[in-house]
Parts: sequence; C-alpha cells; structure tokens
Amino acid sequence: MLERLSEHACFGGLQGFYRHTSSQIGLPMQFSVYQPPQAQHGPVPVLFYLAGLTCTEETFMIKAGAQRFAAQHGIMLVAPDTSPRQTGISGEADNWDFGTGAGFYLDATAAPWSAHFRMESYIVHELRQLILDQFPAQPDRLGLFGHSMGGHGALVLALRHPDLFRSVSAFAPICAPMRCSWGQKAFSRYLGDDTTTWQQYDASELMRKRQAPFPRGILIDQGLSDKFLQVQLMPEQFESACNAAQQPLTLRRHVGYDHGYYFIASFIEDHIAFHQAQLSAA
Amino acid sequence: MLERLSEHACFGGLQGFYRHTSSQIGLPMQFSVYQPPQAQHGPVPVLFYLAGLTCTEETFMIKAGAQRFAAQHGIMLVAPDTSPRQTGISGEADNWDFGTGAGFYLDATAAPWSAHFRMESYIVHELRQLILDQFPAQPDRLGLFGHSMGGHGALVLALRHPDLFRSVSAFAPICAPMRCSWGQKAFSRYLGDDTTTWQQYDASELMRKRQAPFPRGILIDQGLSDKFLQVQLMPEQFESACNAAQQPLTLRRHVGYDHGYYFIASFIEDHIAFHQAQLSAA
Repeated sequence: MLERLSEHACFGGLQGFYRHTSSQIGLPMQFSVYQPPQAQHGPVPVLFYLAGLTCTEETFMIKAGAQRFAAQHGIMLVAPDTSPRQTGISGEADNWDFGTGAGFYLDATAAPWSAHFRMESYIVHELRQLILDQFPAQPDRLGLFGHSMGGHGALVLALRHPDLFRSVSAFAPICAPMRCSWGQKAFSRYLGDDTTTWQQYDASELMRKRQAPFPRGILIDQGLSDKFLQVQLMPEQFESACNAAQQPLTLRRHVGYDHGYYFIASFIEDHIAFHQAQLSAA
Repeated sequence: MLERLSEHACFGGLQGFYRHTSSQIGLPMQFSVYQPPQAQHGPVPVLFYLAGLTCTEETFMIKAGAQRFAAQHGIMLVAPDTSPRQTGISGEADNWDFGTGAGFYLDATAAPWSAHFRMESYIVHELRQLILDQFPAQPDRLGLFGHSMGGHGALVLALRHPDLFRSVSAFAPICAPMRCSWGQKAFSRYLGDDTTTWQQYDASELMRKRQAPFPRGILIDQGLSDKFLQVQLMPEQFESACNAAQQPLTLRRHVGYDHGYYFIASFIEDHIAFHQAQLSAA
C-alpha cells in the first residue's frame, strides 16, 4: 500500500511525497519521487539520491534544483529518507550524526539497531522494487548519487551492487568512513567491534580490495572550503584506491565551495547529464 | 553596521545572509543577498524578492533555484524577511496570516503595530539604500518581484514607487487584498477601519484609479490548481484594472500548478529573463 502524501506540478512533471510500510525496516517509511514529463508516455531511467546527515526525503527535492534537468533529460528522481524514525530504540535521536537521520545506508548487525536499521536492503531491494512496480521506471536504467553520508551510501551501494546500478556520482562523499569519526561512531554501533565487517561499507576499502570496481566511470564533486573535507570526507583515499584499481574517476575540486546545498545546486546540472549519458548508453 | 551571518559560494557568485539594526523597524532585521559573479567586476542590477506568508529571508534563496539565472544574467538578488520579529507586541505570533511572518509590505498606522510594522519604508528606503551603500549595485536598475503576499507587496510597492523600480513581476500574487480575508484581516488591524486608506495598498485599486500605472509591462504567473486562487488571489481583478488603465500585463495561467515553490521554480527562469530585459533597457 502506497500512501500519497502530496503531489505538485513541477517543470511539466510531478513532484510527489509518499509513505509505505516497509517490510525491511518494519516501520512506515517516507520517500519522494520526481516524475519527468516523459514519464507520462512510458518508462524512464531512475536516479536514486541519498541525502546526508539530518536530512529527510524532502531536502534534495527542495534545495538542489534537480527537477529542471531531470525534466530536460527525462529521468525520474527518487529520494528515500536517511534512516528509520520512531523505532522506539532508546536514545535513537540523541545524536545528529548517529541514529535518526543517520542510517549510513547499511544493514545494522548489532543490537538494538539491527531490528530496524536496514537501509541497504530497504533501498537496494524493497524501495527499488516498489519504484519499478508503482512508477513508470526502466528496471535496467538505474543510477545512484548522493551527498556526504549519502555520497558514501551511493558509492558503497553501487560498488556492492554493480549489477543493479549503471551509474554513480557523489557530492562531497564520506570516502573512507573507517578513518573518520562519523564513520567510526556509526560502524562501531551499527556493525559492532569487528572492523573486518566495516570494510564492506567503506568505499575506499571496497575499491582498494578491487572486490568490485565499478564497470563505468565515477564522478565526484568536492568543495575546497568544505569544513569537513580533511577530517571526515577524505576524497584522496578514494582517489588513490581508484588509481590502484584502474577505476576511472573524475574528482573535481572546487575552490571556495562549502558542504551545503548551494554547492550542490551549482553542479547538479553536470551530475544529471553525467548519469543521463551512462543510463542511455547501449 | 552590517553583521554577516553566513556566506556560501554559489554558481560562481556569493550567497550571503546578513543582519542589521533597522531604524525604520526599530529592531534587528535579517536579509539575504545573492551576488552574481559579475558583481566582482562592478555594479550590477538588483532584483528584490518579497516572500509570502510564514516565509523568511531564507525561503526564496533555498527553494526557487533563482541563483542559476541571476548568475547567467548578472543580476543581484535581495530577499528581506517578511515582517519584524520579536517586537514584544502581545499576540504577534498567534496567527500564521497576520503579525510575525505577515507584514504585508505596508507601513502600519494603527497601534500597536505602527511602532514596528513599517515594511514599506524599510524596504523602499532603508534596505534599498543599504544595498546601494554596501553592495556593488546599480541604483537606477532596481526591480521587484514576489510570491503571494510578496506578490502583492511587489505590485503595490512598484505602483507606489515607479520612480525607484524599473521592473515588476509576481507569482500568484494577492491581487485585490481589500476583497479577500487575508487582506481584510491584515488591513483592518494594520491600517484601522477607514477603508479609503486600504486602497493605497491594494494593487487592483491603485491600478483602477490610474494613480500610478507602471511605465513598463508587468508579468504575473498563476497556477490553476492553486487552492487560494479564487478566494484570496483574484488575478482577474488586477487584469481588468490593467485593461481599464491600458497597463500592459502578461498574465499566464498554468494548468495543474499549485501555490508552492515547485511552481515558482518551474517559471523562475522566465521571470529573471523578463527583469533582465527591462533592467538593461536604455
């Protein structure tokens, strides 16, 4: 059952907000979909956007200005929430960088988080299938992108499921979560103390081990005035891992830009065009 | 004294948020400015945006996607807050459509509101002069636009001060506030019971009396799925007044669009181009 919360005409298409009961999460989840005008005439490619810490399914649709280019290229945009909410787990909302709003796009294995915090399975299996079932989507033309924690999510989910996603890009992603405090805090609580399991959710480790280099090029944009650049994001870690794995990567460093959506909006056109090219390739 | 709250690189320009103590309002006021890249090399035209009920100086800059086109055309964007805040007036924040967040861009004459609610003088005199003094702005190239209550504000302030503003447009403006409940509630409290004074702040009345037809054309966009269209906005009132006054007006009615920023974002490009043409005319 898909509950329609609101729908709004937008660039000739439809911006919608929806709720459903997720079997993977075991709770209601909300997500947003932008259907371009082309979706009125048949299935279109789909680009999943994963947002950062503290964000919701609404943030990207309000702030990024992506619908203009999704309409231009005929791409559907889908944005899930960033975590389960109101799980009943004690202290779930005490931290802005862990728990509510900070699901890190993984399947938690440590109690009490493992009961509900299953964002990887939710997005990759349940939400993906729901979109294919309920919206005019092309199942073999799916891409992933995201910002910060969601940039980590996009890179990790694309590397872990290259059979499902044809394209991936990121804005200011957390590139090496095992090496930064955000990632260490989240992984230790969601996954427990065995750091060998952490490697499965660290984009630089996945790339370094060449377990799953992505079959196509990857695009990353990073602002050089981003206050999280050196201590949390570490794009140089992913860059060197890509070099070692001979993974094509375009990592653009932008002077003056910070970590926020004014940065994302400034370069969203390039990301949509990048995915369009990869999603439309034979 | 201009206090800088934050600044962000955006489309090669600078998105800033500022606070100052307003002499007209008698309290601190916040506003936002987008400086396009061209402003680094000399003064540029300025477009003031007036937001709607419940909004702040941040709403437009986050949601409209205007900076892309301001950067393209070399236009500065300025957005004031929608009212004084924390005035100490009893009940100021009890209504979402009156008081805090609902200044209606007029100078109140009735107590207790007259002490602080002087948004017309604040914008037209104080903020305009502050922008000219503190930012690289061309004093004879100023335009006005806005949404809903702010569309009302843009039309009224442009008609009342055609010597100061060269261009005006609006999204879903309140066109005849004397005839709708939003306007009646606000005018009766801000201006008192004498409805002859209300006419000075009603765009349709101003146009109908031909007191100040605007020297150039006016652009209005209106969604036909806007739930406020018939009871609060009444663009047909302004349209017939413009016809009678031989005022050039382009009123576009858009099937399916509602009252929100997904509507505004869909047509912002046209508005910036419209102002650019008028602001750059000899």
